[in-house]
Amino acid sequence: MFDVRPVAYVTGLLVAVLGASMLVPMAVDFAYGNGHWPIFLEAAIVTALTGGLAALASANGVGPRLSLRQTFLIATLAWLVLPVFAAIPFMLGPPEARFVDAFFEAMSGLTTTGSTVFVGLDSLPEGVLLWRSMLQWFGGVGIIVVAMVFLPELRVGGMQIFRTEAFDTAGKILPRAAQIAARIGVVYLVLTAACIAAYRAVGMDAFDAVNHALTTVSTGGFSTTDASFGAFQGVPEYVASVFMVLASLPFVRFVQLMGGSAMPLWRDSQVRAFLVVMLALTGVTALYRVLANDDHLEHAIREGLFNVTSIMTGTGYASVDYQLWGSFPVVLFFFLGLIGGCAGSTCCSIKIFRYQLLISAIRAQIRRLHSPHGVFEPRYEGRKVGEDVISSVITFFVIFIVTLGVLSVALAMTGLDTVTALSGAATALANIGPGLGREIGPAGNFAGLNDTAKWLLSLAMLAGRLELMTVLVLFTRRFWSA
Amino acid sequence: MFDVRPVAYVTGLLVAVLGASMLVPMAVDFAYGNGHWPIFLEAAIVTALTGGLAALASANGVGPRLSLRQTFLIATLAWLVLPVFAAIPFMLGPPEARFVDAFFEAMSGLTTTGSTVFVGLDSLPEGVLLWRSMLQWFGGVGIIVVAMVFLPELRVGGMQIFRTEAFDTAGKILPRAAQIAARIGVVYLVLTAACIAAYRAVGMDAFDAVNHALTTVSTGGFSTTDASFGAFQGVPEYVASVFMVLASLPFVRFVQLMGGSAMPLWRDSQVRAFLVVMLALTGVTALYRVLANDDHLEHAIREGLFNVTSIMTGTGYASVDYQLWGSFPVVLFFFLGLIGGCAGSTCCSIKIFRYQLLISAIRAQIRRLHSPHGVFEPRYEGRKVGEDVISSVITFFVIFIVTLGVLSVALAMTGLDTVTALSGAATALANIGPGLGREIGPAGNFAGLNDTAKWLLSLAMLAGRLELMTVLVLFTRRFWSA
Ligand SMILES: [K+]
Ligand SMILES: [K+]
Repeated sequence: MFDVRPVAYVTGLLVAVLGASMLVPMAVDFAYGNGHWPIFLEAAIVTALTGGLAALASANGVGPRLSLRQTFLIATLAWLVLPVFAAIPFMLGPPEARFVDAFFEAMSGLTTTGSTVFVGLDSLPEGVLLWRSMLQWFGGVGIIVVAMVFLPELRVGGMQIFRTEAFDTAGKILPRAAQIAARIGVVYLVLTAACIAAYRAVGMDAFDAVNHALTTVSTGGFSTTDASFGAFQGVPEYVASVFMVLASLPFVRFVQLMGGSAMPLWRDSQVRAFLVVMLALTGVTALYRVLANDDHLEHAIREGLFNVTSIMTGTGYASVDYQLWGSFPVVLFFFLGLIGGCAGSTCCSIKIFRYQLLISAIRAQIRRLHSPHGVFEPRYEGRKVGEDVISSVITFFVIFIVTLGVLSVALAMTGLDTVTALSGAATALANIGPGLGREIGPAGNFAGLNDTAKWLLSLAMLAGRLELMTVLVLFTRRFWSA
Repeated sequence: MFDVRPVAYVTGLLVAVLGASMLVPMAVDFAYGNGHWPIFLEAAIVTALTGGLAALASANGVGPRLSLRQTFLIATLAWLVLPVFAAIPFMLGPPEARFVDAFFEAMSGLTTTGSTVFVGLDSLPEGVLLWRSMLQWFGGVGIIVVAMVFLPELRVGGMQIFRTEAFDTAGKILPRAAQIAARIGVVYLVLTAACIAAYRAVGMDAFDAVNHALTTVSTGGFSTTDASFGAFQGVPEYVASVFMVLASLPFVRFVQLMGGSAMPLWRDSQVRAFLVVMLALTGVTALYRVLANDDHLEHAIREGLFNVTSIMTGTGYASVDYQLWGSFPVVLFFFLGLIGGCAGSTCCSIKIFRYQLLISAIRAQIRRLHSPHGVFEPRYEGRKVGEDVISSVITFFVIFIVTLGVLSVALAMTGLDTVTALSGAATALANIGPGLGREIGPAGNFAGLNDTAKWLLSLAMLAGRLELMTVLVLFTRRFWSA
């Protein structure tokens, strides 16, 4: 038996905080004169009470540090329990969703995926729209903390190479998490404020600016309108692109930047690789639009930049249905979504550093082909990388692809068509948002899918967000024995 | 400078043999009274002469053993030059194809891919049909020899684990190749003869039986009719299934079997894993057909068995358009094609042993997650597997997936629709044959693709057949320097 009390304590605290935060959309609905504001109060009371009691009941079992098992369990359990409570307002008030839809939407929010099952966003009360955006914003900062504190500690997916970076405080895991969260929180708040100001400056009204800022800096992608970013074509697309890119850089570099040293940001090879790939593919897409679609240059560059960054960072805003551009952008964007941003940002998917490590491992491999008896070690940022890091990265990549395959087959089995099944699996696992095809494409919506598919996709978002291994390890006998 | 003469010698000899073999379809066309039989004579003379002269001119440079570089170069060059000559009869006589089409068809033959650009197979002269089948048959035995002699030596894609197996003769690479080829050749001939007899026994005429036997034991998939195996529904599908499966097992086990020991075959974990996966997916597909499509049981089992084995072994015969069954089989078969058969057989694709090694590596990884300071090594058939094998396998897997992505994008850029681009890339790289969608699906044909797409697919077949790394290494500066 192992002590589940610390797990219940941390999860309970998080639930309580989530409950308290429901007072914000309540206040907004009240201010806008939306009669259903008591819904959020009810939900807040139920949530805060449940969470608070769970935390209180288990507080006596919290020791000075967490075991590996407890840490793994917290990561998955928190991301599984929070959406259940976050879904309550969606069920009690408009859009009066069924549990499967409310849970899907909440999971899509907290994992910053951004796929939506709600139709008619434009007519939903402001409080509900804000609640969706807030879930993504929480999810965004939550995942940075998980990626910086928990995953390196858990040695998941090669994240251990970021273990001793920047925050080498040698503290216990929970105090350290609090300390990191505090510093990251400041960066996150500054970025959000700047994004709100920028959106206001280019003409968005206050409500839209706040909501889109919350879902931009979290690379979440929820919008306040069914048209998504199609309602804000023009200069706001440039603003969104800039902030989506900023949100995809390693937040630890911003902390260092605020401490006065810009060098770590410029020297970070992840950052450079990310920017090079992003700009190159923007160029290719814009060129294609001009040459193949007779688009004019500024429009081609703007739409190219916005959509490439939106997909690559995993934000998933849609400003146009790029499926109408021909099959080249469609196939390109499908694979683009499997690249992702930098580790330690709000981005998900496979992430650029894993490709860098894979390329480095492949290079070492090619040298070995040529000189079978030489010893060649992969390197990252000039330092030798241990075999355990490489094998973690590779494990992640293989499991990602295999999960993608199995999930696609399962989705097709529930009756989804080929393109919907394949792209739905990819967009959920990589936490992007839109899929491909008529149903769930950039111009579509997940509302029409069957319930089984919605559950499968919800779990895929969770697994993708926690870098797969964190969740998978819970299903091994070894985890529960001894 | 390094000595290209051994490369020219081996390639020349192979070309000369290919030329001589053209006398077989010549004789067949003559016997069937097809007036264009001199086409094959012309092609035979040109081919044998060119190959023979190249071999003669370089014979004086052949030393006792080949360097690594020469070996790599031979593997790729032979598979690039042979299709050029094999294409000649397709251009000189019916179907009077353009070079791009003739080369595609010859490459598709020699790599045992089985995608075709020829329409109206039923009206082509017997000699031409036989020549297509013969190319696959040569390709099949060629790849076994490459997989057993060259790839383990070159340490490509983890094949080094088969290095010391069965043929541990410690000889020089060329004599060893000859010795292995001889023993494998006997097995291959016996299997082919048995397959011809079996097809005859279930009612195929002699010509169809020979052609389909040649393309069954090579898991090639060319047929003598546009309807492919749709023309032979019923008992021949069971016969084909059995021989496709046999052709997907490691041929070295058959050699041992002929030596009187059956144990190595039953004990081979690749064989067991392959059969388990194949039978399980046959069951799932048949069940789906009965439950979802109201098919009757025998028909569901037969079509399930035939199509699952056809795709999983990479043969690519089509007996029906399984795209009409719904999206579940389509998505399943897409990923099924990425599994493949056993190493040392005529199969291609990623292959079952790589998945076994990946799973083993992932297991070791999960144990490490649980006990960060323990040492866990992946195992294969009970033996510890070195890190270099695992990293080779992983490199192969990653390069396969990344190449698939890049190729899909390139194909879409030439104007192919999304499904055609994605499935075309997969079917070429995994040497399966049919793709998905209306154009290149099981009921379609590659004839309508643009020339650029045909060239890209031809090169993909080559790269896929040689396990990617063999070809990729030629594009590194390191290969050519020093
Ligand atoms: K997203
Ligand atoms: K094939």
